[in-house]
Amino acid sequence: MKSKKSFAVGVDLGATNIKTGIVEVNGSISDQISVESKSDKGPPVVIQQIIFSIQEVLGKYKLRDCKGIGIGTPGVVSSTDGTVQHPPNFANWSSVDVTKKIRQSFSVPVYVENDANCAALAESRFGAGIEFKDFLFVIWGTGIGGGIIINRKLYRGPNGGAGEIGHLSIDYDGAACNCGGIGCIESYIGQRYLSQRTKEIFTTLRSGERAIIEKLVDGNLDKIEPVIISKAAELGDPTAISILKEAGTLLGSALASILNVLDLEVVVIGGGISAAPGFVYEAILSSVRSRVLKPHRAGVKVIRASLGNNAGIIGAASLVL
Amino acid sequence: MKSKKSFAVGVDLGATNIKTGIVEVNGSISDQISVESKSDKGPPVVIQQIIFSIQEVLGKYKLRDCKGIGIGTPGVVSSTDGTVQHPPNFANWSSVDVTKKIRQSFSVPVYVENDANCAALAESRFGAGIEFKDFLFVIWGTGIGGGIIINRKLYRGPNGGAGEIGHLSIDYDGAACNCGGIGCIESYIGQRYLSQRTKEIFTTLRSGERAIIEKLVDGNLDKIEPVIISKAAELGDPTAISILKEAGTLLGSALASILNVLDLEVVVIGGGISAAPGFVYEAILSSVRSRVLKPHRAGVKVIRASLGNNAGIIGAASLVL
Repeated sequence: MKSKKSFAVGVDLGATNIKTGIVEVNGSISDQISVESKSDKGPPVVIQQIIFSIQEVLGKYKLRDCKGIGIGTPGVVSSTDGTVQHPPNFANWSSVDVTKKIRQSFSVPVYVENDANCAALAESRFGAGIEFKDFLFVIWGTGIGGGIIINRKLYRGPNGGAGEIGHLSIDYDGAACNCGGIGCIESYIGQRYLSQRTKEIFTTLRSGERAIIEKLVDGNLDKIEPVIISKAAELGDPTAISILKEAGTLLGSALASILNVLDLEVVVIGGGISAAPGFVYEAILSSVRSRVLKPHRAGVKVIRASLGNNAGIIGAASLVL
Repeated sequence: MKSKKSFAVGVDLGATNIKTGIVEVNGSISDQISVESKSDKGPPVVIQQIIFSIQEVLGKYKLRDCKGIGIGTPGVVSSTDGTVQHPPNFANWSSVDVTKKIRQSFSVPVYVENDANCAALAESRFGAGIEFKDFLFVIWGTGIGGGIIINRKLYRGPNGGAGEIGHLSIDYDGAACNCGGIGCIESYIGQRYLSQRTKEIFTTLRSGERAIIEKLVDGNLDKIEPVIISKAAELGDPTAISILKEAGTLLGSALASILNVLDLEVVVIGGGISAAPGFVYEAILSSVRSRVLKPHRAGVKVIRASLGNNAGIIGAASLVL
């Protein structure tokens, strides 16, 4: 028996892996494991994988010290019945009650919430948002997602779908987005679009101007992704710097709109691309500040999330703690 | 003595006039008057005008039947101390406690709220929003404002400034807005911009193509304003129709972004330009529906506010009722 302290189990369900951890009441993770999601096998198999991961991580702990299990999931979590609806990249999944079987298996309270909302909660309670009562949390990664924290609580929206900031349009006549919308910020700076655009730009350059990035991708421009663009920028590549600055400016335009509508001033940015160099944050801040309504200008803050990849597990456990 | 029923007084403070009414508990206005705001004379004079208007309208009623006084005002109403901050077009006004002197004068509860929020409340309790728990209220007039109704209550934001939807940008690289931002929806379809743009377009047309609108403005294109554009459209003027349709499409782009972020599906549109012909609403709806995230598409509704100019008085009184 490893601990006498009470704890919660946090489950971060992704399309590839399920990361499950033991989270102490102070937000620290004392144990965690990762198992395959098997998201192509349908809901019963995925739920079985979640149960398996919980059993594994609980191995060394007493179930009576477990205050409950929280699950962070892609897709919309219904405000009415708690079902998980249409998580992208999960096969045969329309609307599924994820909690029932898990509750039966462990006889502790089980909660479920959208993964971006979980990460927002984690940053609010234990991370970069801890000193702010109200803030917008942004996930900048494969897609652009978000969570809205008002008075230290999640704003979930009437159906649990609030915070879809990736599908705020920054150009009514702009690029077509996968969602069917036009000019969504995600379709400019989401991982795939950013990588694709960077590749296109570098392809047009003379070989001397491509030297830094070509070295980073071993000559294969198809390997360009945000972490490579960041590295190139840090090595002084002017094209990479300008691409990331522009991405920051575009994100700033979307953020200013949201701050105006919601009367917010603080933005916490997480997700894979949030590891970008500091000058990207300066570009975002400068863009937000020049676009937001005057009463907000002095108070605007754009800060980096502090919990990294652990935000999912910690946030899921926060549903319990 | 005109009535034995209890009532509230609603005050709609504008930069030109103060409209003050007796509002019954069912939301109907049984008496109302309008006095000058004297907004160029500074806060003490404006407050005196409000008191005067209340005394006048109360003349025939018993003060003991008055449950309270509600005031709708431009500017931000602070969530912390209730002061009214920076109402546009009011001289020498930074942050003013409007309620104190009024409370002293009448010895009833006095409440104050932003005017767009008041109109949103009015439509929620007594108007077009009555059947919807959650909706976005839009004022489409001189500027573009709004109010957010969640679970039949106002979402005011941390500082009381939420709902500034006119300053959501629909083009990160678009027109400069008076607010200092770029591409704000207000700078495309607010009254002044819409009128100016319409004038510019008609100026380039051959005289035969200008016949309808020239007749409506007695040959003076400077007189173009939205009500004229609407009339021209109703008379079949193809240019006026296309301008209004485009305005609806642009508004729809902004609305889709907001519905996505806030997880809302219903929009109620008030303000002067909301009297536009039905095809404008069709353009808005079609634009929203084609841009909003899939789960919202079936449920999207765009409807006309039903209380017209009375929404201000009724909403202010709703703060009491």
